[in-house]
Amino acid sequence: MTPRLYIDATLATENAVALSQTQVHYLKNVLRKEEGSEVLVFNGNEGEFSAKLVELKKRGGLAAVGPRTRAPEKEPDLTLLFAPVKRGPLEMIIQKATELGVSRLAPVLTERTVAPKLNIERLQAIAIEAAEQCGRLSVPSVDKPIKLGALIDAWPQDRRIIFCDEAGDDETKEWGGQDGRAAPILETLNRTDSKAQQDVVPGALLTGPEGGFSPAERAMLRANSFVAPVTLGPRILRADTAVIAALALWQSAVGDWRDGVVTDA
Amino acid sequence: MTPRLYIDATLATENAVALSQTQVHYLKNVLRKEEGSEVLVFNGNEGEFSAKLVELKKRGGLAAVGPRTRAPEKEPDLTLLFAPVKRGPLEMIIQKATELGVSRLAPVLTERTVAPKLNIERLQAIAIEAAEQCGRLSVPSVDKPIKLGALIDAWPQDRRIIFCDEAGDDETKEWGGQDGRAAPILETLNRTDSKAQQDVVPGALLTGPEGGFSPAERAMLRANSFVAPVTLGPRILRADTAVIAALALWQSAVGDWRDGVVTDA
Repeated sequence: MTPRLYIDATLATENAVALSQTQVHYLKNVLRKEEGSEVLVFNGNEGEFSAKLVELKKRGGLAAVGPRTRAPEKEPDLTLLFAPVKRGPLEMIIQKATELGVSRLAPVLTERTVAPKLNIERLQAIAIEAAEQCGRLSVPSVDKPIKLGALIDAWPQDRRIIFCDEAGDDETKEWGGQDGRAAPILETLNRTDSKAQQDVVPGALLTGPEGGFSPAERAMLRANSFVAPVTLGPRILRADTAVIAALALWQSAVGDWRDGVVTDA
Repeated sequence: MTPRLYIDATLATENAVALSQTQVHYLKNVLRKEEGSEVLVFNGNEGEFSAKLVELKKRGGLAAVGPRTRAPEKEPDLTLLFAPVKRGPLEMIIQKATELGVSRLAPVLTERTVAPKLNIERLQAIAIEAAEQCGRLSVPSVDKPIKLGALIDAWPQDRRIIFCDEAGDDETKEWGGQDGRAAPILETLNRTDSKAQQDVVPGALLTGPEGGFSPAERAMLRANSFVAPVTLGPRILRADTAVIAALALWQSAVGDWRDGVVTDA
């Protein structure tokens, strides 16, 4: 398989693009590529192009951009709001969310978040690598962490948040009624009117830390009409499992895993 | 949280159960439990019971079984047929599939499987640990590896296999027509008549190795009426991502993530 390289610069046929030290190291020492080898270069703005490696030096390299192989595509506008967890599952979340087509990764600090010091640059690098391997054109952005309260205060009211409430209805009887009820995630996703549309509507998913959300956080979230609390089955899921499950369901029900969805720009 | 211990022996109130060396080590050295501490013991046959640690010796221990805390439950009959992959993602598959309610884990050897020597005992231990942590009562069984051809030859015709065909329709035009078409997984799951039923129907999901299935394997699979080829979106998913995504969709569409499904025995 031809290596794919994400290029954070304008791409155009017959131009040259600079390769970073990291990219050169990967091409030379991991993939054993040499000057003259074919690669693919891409980004979300201009699409994907075939390219030829013309220079591989220790301090960086150069590739000559050839014909375009893929035009830019319209991709789902999907934000993942997630409580950071420890390193292994955190990196898993970034990698898998990228494979599953998320456009924005937003770490959210909750009461029970055991906050590791987040290395945003490292997380962004994981997202780039995952985008290169899964064949997508864009790379999701990784936000700086934000506190849950501040996030909700500033949230655009017209964008629904699918709130994955691990505890489901067990502790939530106090909110009572249909409104506060956490329904199965697929039921809630199917209830959207976006299914009638050919296009994908913007979305956001919120997942919690290992200990779940606090009762105060759950009440605060449910008090907002743009928050739809949902359940993910009768078993306790780890944080990374919940993210992957919820994203796959979103893409299947209202995203680009459906047939006939408009994905061309 | 009270530790949960899976016990592969008959459980009954006022009886004692033996604890293995591994269980004692975990209780004493990881969880810092002492004689007298409360635990939960469970299995799929008798359910879950509270218990008290009465002996913690190097060679094994003993717990006194108290009142039953959960009756046995009817659980989905769902087999995961998966091509083994390298150690990290393989262990991820076992752990996540257990959290997602699989009843049987069957490693399947395909043409492109880079077969690691499978340590079934170790995989079974991972499944037990995941069952203890996710709150389920049963532990999925882990089969010995079987070749794909032999598996399909012996397969019960009345049990559908949802075949996650990563390549989707791209290479499959040769099989043509509606029959051989790989539809989006949710579309296929929704097409089942089991949705009309309150109960969960038996199922099986088949996922491939990193390189996907060979053209010959894909033709062979599609030649069987019990095989339903499905796609998992436009991006390339890693083997473990595909497993988690497919299982979450199965549970949501036809399994026990739905409301009102009969789960009591």
